[in-house]
Amino acid sequence: MRTSRAAIFPAPNRPVELREYALPELAAGEALLRVDCSEVCGTDVHLHHGRLAGVPYPLIPGHVTAGTLEAVRGELRDVEGVQLREGDAVTFLDVHRTCHSCWYCLVAKASTRCPARKVYGITYGAADGLCGGWADYVHLLAGTRVLRLGATRPRDFLLGGCSLPTALHALERAQVQIGDAVVVLGIGPVGLSCIALARAAGAAVVLAIGGPANRVPAALLMGADEALDLATLPAGERQAWIRQRTGGRGADVVIEATGAPEAVVQAMRGARDAGRVVVVGQYTDHGEVAWNPHLDLNRKHLDVRGCWGSDYSHFHRAVQVAGHATLGAPWRSLPVREFALAQAGEALAAVASGEVVKALVIP
Amino acid sequence: MRTSRAAIFPAPNRPVELREYALPELAAGEALLRVDCSEVCGTDVHLHHGRLAGVPYPLIPGHVTAGTLEAVRGELRDVEGVQLREGDAVTFLDVHRTCHSCWYCLVAKASTRCPARKVYGITYGAADGLCGGWADYVHLLAGTRVLRLGATRPRDFLLGGCSLPTALHALERAQVQIGDAVVVLGIGPVGLSCIALARAAGAAVVLAIGGPANRVPAALLMGADEALDLATLPAGERQAWIRQRTGGRGADVVIEATGAPEAVVQAMRGARDAGRVVVVGQYTDHGEVAWNPHLDLNRKHLDVRGCWGSDYSHFHRAVQVAGHATLGAPWRSLPVREFALAQAGEALAAVASGEVVKALVIP
Amino acid sequence: MRTSRAAIFPAPNRPVELREYALPELAAGEALLRVDCSEVCGTDVHLHHGRLAGVPYPLIPGHVTAGTLEAVRGELRDVEGVQLREGDAVTFLDVHRTCHSCWYCLVAKASTRCPARKVYGITYGAADGLCGGWADYVHLLAGTRVLRLGATRPRDFLLGGCSLPTALHALERAQVQIGDAVVVLGIGPVGLSCIALARAAGAAVVLAIGGPANRVPAALLMGADEALDLATLPAGERQAWIRQRTGGRGADVVIEATGAPEAVVQAMRGARDAGRVVVVGQYTDHGEVAWNPHLDLNRKHLDVRGCWGSDYSHFHRAVQVAGHATLGAPWRSLPVREFALAQAGEALAAVASGEVVKALVIP
Amino acid sequence: MRTSRAAIFPAPNRPVELREYALPELAAGEALLRVDCSEVCGTDVHLHHGRLAGVPYPLIPGHVTAGTLEAVRGELRDVEGVQLREGDAVTFLDVHRTCHSCWYCLVAKASTRCPARKVYGITYGAADGLCGGWADYVHLLAGTRVLRLGATRPRDFLLGGCSLPTALHALERAQVQIGDAVVVLGIGPVGLSCIALARAAGAAVVLAIGGPANRVPAALLMGADEALDLATLPAGERQAWIRQRTGGRGADVVIEATGAPEAVVQAMRGARDAGRVVVVGQYTDHGEVAWNPHLDLNRKHLDVRGCWGSDYSHFHRAVQVAGHATLGAPWRSLPVREFALAQAGEALAAVASGEVVKALVIP
Repeated sequence: MRTSRAAIFPAPNRPVELREYALPELAAGEALLRVDCSEVCGTDVHLHHGRLAGVPYPLIPGHVTAGTLEAVRGELRDVEGVQLREGDAVTFLDVHRTCHSCWYCLVAKASTRCPARKVYGITYGAADGLCGGWADYVHLLAGTRVLRLGATRPRDFLLGGCSLPTALHALERAQVQIGDAVVVLGIGPVGLSCIALARAAGAAVVLAIGGPANRVPAALLMGADEALDLATLPAGERQAWIRQRTGGRGADVVIEATGAPEAVVQAMRGARDAGRVVVVGQYTDHGEVAWNPHLDLNRKHLDVRGCWGSDYSHFHRAVQVAGHATLGAPWRSLPVREFALAQAGEALAAVASGEVVKALVIP
Repeated sequence: MRTSRAAIFPAPNRPVELREYALPELAAGEALLRVDCSEVCGTDVHLHHGRLAGVPYPLIPGHVTAGTLEAVRGELRDVEGVQLREGDAVTFLDVHRTCHSCWYCLVAKASTRCPARKVYGITYGAADGLCGGWADYVHLLAGTRVLRLGATRPRDFLLGGCSLPTALHALERAQVQIGDAVVVLGIGPVGLSCIALARAAGAAVVLAIGGPANRVPAALLMGADEALDLATLPAGERQAWIRQRTGGRGADVVIEATGAPEAVVQAMRGARDAGRVVVVGQYTDHGEVAWNPHLDLNRKHLDVRGCWGSDYSHFHRAVQVAGHATLGAPWRSLPVREFALAQAGEALAAVASGEVVKALVIP
Repeated sequence: MRTSRAAIFPAPNRPVELREYALPELAAGEALLRVDCSEVCGTDVHLHHGRLAGVPYPLIPGHVTAGTLEAVRGELRDVEGVQLREGDAVTFLDVHRTCHSCWYCLVAKASTRCPARKVYGITYGAADGLCGGWADYVHLLAGTRVLRLGATRPRDFLLGGCSLPTALHALERAQVQIGDAVVVLGIGPVGLSCIALARAAGAAVVLAIGGPANRVPAALLMGADEALDLATLPAGERQAWIRQRTGGRGADVVIEATGAPEAVVQAMRGARDAGRVVVVGQYTDHGEVAWNPHLDLNRKHLDVRGCWGSDYSHFHRAVQVAGHATLGAPWRSLPVREFALAQAGEALAAVASGEVVKALVIP
Repeated sequence: MRTSRAAIFPAPNRPVELREYALPELAAGEALLRVDCSEVCGTDVHLHHGRLAGVPYPLIPGHVTAGTLEAVRGELRDVEGVQLREGDAVTFLDVHRTCHSCWYCLVAKASTRCPARKVYGITYGAADGLCGGWADYVHLLAGTRVLRLGATRPRDFLLGGCSLPTALHALERAQVQIGDAVVVLGIGPVGLSCIALARAAGAAVVLAIGGPANRVPAALLMGADEALDLATLPAGERQAWIRQRTGGRGADVVIEATGAPEAVVQAMRGARDAGRVVVVGQYTDHGEVAWNPHLDLNRKHLDVRGCWGSDYSHFHRAVQVAGHATLGAPWRSLPVREFALAQAGEALAAVASGEVVKALVIP
């Protein structure tokens, strides 16, 4: 095959189209990935609505993707130093070109704020080549971090997909202690992954609040002790709901994974004094919200931690977790709907409406 | 002398009065302190305005106080195990009865959120006895943590006063690294102490923004490289002012010590991505403020840390710092105005108007 | 019943004796516990051999103990503020009189190094009263931290026993990240608890090395992926064994829980560069060992963390973990042998020889 | 000039020779540095004695070096993104080729353990080109991190030299709190820098122990409150000497910067319980030492932290500190002896004997 199909966003708010692209000539250090599986995530919905700045439409969406190496040109090694070979089942870090040369990378050691970062399926457009996963093939540019999946099936890795490294980063920031009570606000893919990881990190109590109602069972599958459909309880009563389940004090840790600004304030109010709040859901700008810095932060002696993106380490651990017999089990229990490339528009609609918990694109 | 004068707040918003109280009979483990020096701080202004809940008026203000032990009944030891004796120059932790028995003390290890805490001069009222420093004597109840001042003069310790342990706690939360750029918002006593401590902790750049204008020179005396009178620059331009002095990125650490809710948001905006913000100035409720959780927190990968009260460790270090030849020098450089007990009302007015940097009550 | 039987150590290396003691008159804040279950741990073996300093023989051993409140005099509350009542199933923190008044408690915040601490069954002797768990009753002195067991059976709590708070402290120091590889050296009760907790904290790989051989299956029951009987592999080959299972680098975390000085050096050698070693097994002095600070520490950029005792927070979490459906499951799977009070000497011998994994004393 | 002189180590334990090398052709991203100043440090003595493995003799020593850019080929930017130009005063990170692609760089985030690292003047030999600072010119290979010195004179930066980033790393690991007591073992360049940085980080007490006697005044110049010539007090009495000056408990932090294995054990014994020890002086293998893991580590609840090498962030901060009016003052107070290139052998001897505190090579 000399060409690859790709489902693209021609421009914001325009229907998904299927196009054909020539396969690239590989330069040294590059590879061609035959896609087994990509995903549709909330970011793709944002991209479709044009909510992210700096996106070069037309775009081939699909940032986290797994498949099989079709061709490798020259030396391409993983972090263990192992040369990657044709036929290897792999995934790759969607973030590319973290520079390791700027102040943020080298002094602040906050590489997710590196301004040079490019992201497959988000800030690489179709003009950059086959740089998104909703396609038969992805062009792995030189410097892309490729990870062997070993015995893990690409599809099993995609069950966590991009939510898993994101949630691993959130949990790293959350510093859950064995026996803690953790509340997760939001039960989209990131929230669901946070539920399973809070459990994995030793939380004694894991509570979830989110919607829509059809996702509530998924929160329980992921390990939540209780999951509250937010439509059933006014915002003003949720704090009490949390306190009733956390010794009257609030949660040791609250992880916000919703996208709604007011949820950040609810997260602060749901945490106990001297607790921790991790904010991982405010990926796009949904405007301002009012809060009370005396009551919500200072008097509570609270830690509130923004969590942006993920780096290689989170992706590395995501591959470990997804492939692990027990750690990876929650994701394998999730209901998933699969879509062919030609159905990518339907997949997007299903994710946008919240009717599916997890949608995969299988070219 | 069988009685003690005390300057009291009879009720919120009523003039300060001078009253006479009988000296207490000491029980075992108690002591009587002859006051050399107490202070007037912003909390006293709040107390006078009735802004704090749970204050049992009439009240003898003056929480941080130093003097000489006039009488000691039975065993009273400091944390080193040294028996305290009559004639010792001492101060004491104004926070009393931290219980070391509740969930916050023992599980969360967040004793500043212990609900049993009582504070001399704030939540102990005149009905509880001579439990405030604007008086000839203070009754040190059993269990009060008393610290020897050694060669440090009580007045020198009071130059830092309650702002110093508060600021030490804020700096502990700030984790300043050698070479960091630190911005302090607010140049009242806590802000001024934060400036000196940021310098002491190795900051390469220390910037201050606050008011009123007459305090700006004090910020420079405390070690700020530059101090901006906030009246001279609109809020919207302060972020740029900070960035121009911090490599275009914002400060590694911003410490909010103002009391104004909007300053918390400015603090977030003044910090660099992946930086730290410590909020120590929101001691009372001044209402809500709007912010943008995407832009101000999540995308910035920011840490925002509330800092409530102080515990014995901060007070212990405050005594060390105040008495130290070099660490304590900034406070000794500050302009101070002294007031007699009968002038306590004037002292209060001078602090409320911001016309003095630091006011001491010398009975 | 007006008396209580107790199994005592009359002096080091002397046979266990059964004696009868009068029940105490309770003072205010005191309680009498009817023992359901106490334990025999390695410390008891050390105590029997006279290996600990400052032990006031004759001694009633049995530090971690659970039972039912037979009588309560006056106010006795748990950390939630709940008044304890006769008939409540409870355990208590064996460490008593942590002073919360000394430099270690208040400045270093390292209360396990408080010199005032007394321990039931270890540094309280029979002369102090019924202060050990190998007895029908324990006298809970004022200030003892009592914890309600709720629906958790005393026996189920004792399956973890004193090893569980100790291991929780070790895990707190270990900062296991989800996906880490953890090696536990030692498969006595503390090591076994560390295995289960490393798993609970999200380790992807948990390896155990220890002995005797009969405990190896217990290590697997607790969640170890592999458990090596140390008798089967020379010390010099264990590092290679670990490396083969940890990507050639060594473990992210090694927890030493053996009591053998040379195991501390093996722990350092089993850890990867920039990893963490927690040393929790060196409870008594077994002499010196040689190591190479260049190779074993500095060039490895290693963190080595001593872990002494446990505080209330660890005990609190231990009660949570033991009573938790999933977190507590590993301990409930352990083989346990029960001994009557009159068999305490046999219990001790069984623990000393390593022939039992866990021995409980059931009066 | 078409050639550069260089003082070289032809082989271990052979006299230093002066040789002439052709200047390199610059490839894209490369530069030629005209050396103003390099240094002679303890590592150079080790290199001369052949104590480091993997060193490709003949070698041009001189790892930390500063000078003026003579020529730049193509794009060469610093971490701020500023293009470097001919005539700029600069230094460069001696560590080159940290890969940012391996497990240590990307997962452990411990880049000083990256196996790909090469070091100018240590693991780059003369066969690699002009890759050491004891020369008229240094060839800055592509990927070298170059830092502008701005108004800081190259010589002033070299007063700290390689000891300053090393000490910054040690202090980062030490987490000194304002008011802490810090002991530094060793008063060679790293120890001296640690003294000044402990002071800069807010230590209230800084004590130094080391030798030879002629360096003791330098320790005081750097800010030590007291400096003990170790020749004057037997090792067994030093712990008491420290305790007398630290409230009877030992230091909050001990930094070992000596190179002698027994000093690591002394460091543990000089620290208070629950304190921190940073081991930064064991750069080469000087064999084993005996210690007691019960007394020296576990019962003390001690943290012992190896500290290997330094990364870009430490170098970046070193430039900040050296150029700072107050932070950099201690180094500018140090006695320094300057040597011409032809005197490099004498410089080496002066450092080896300890007769100079600091030796610079000025071509």
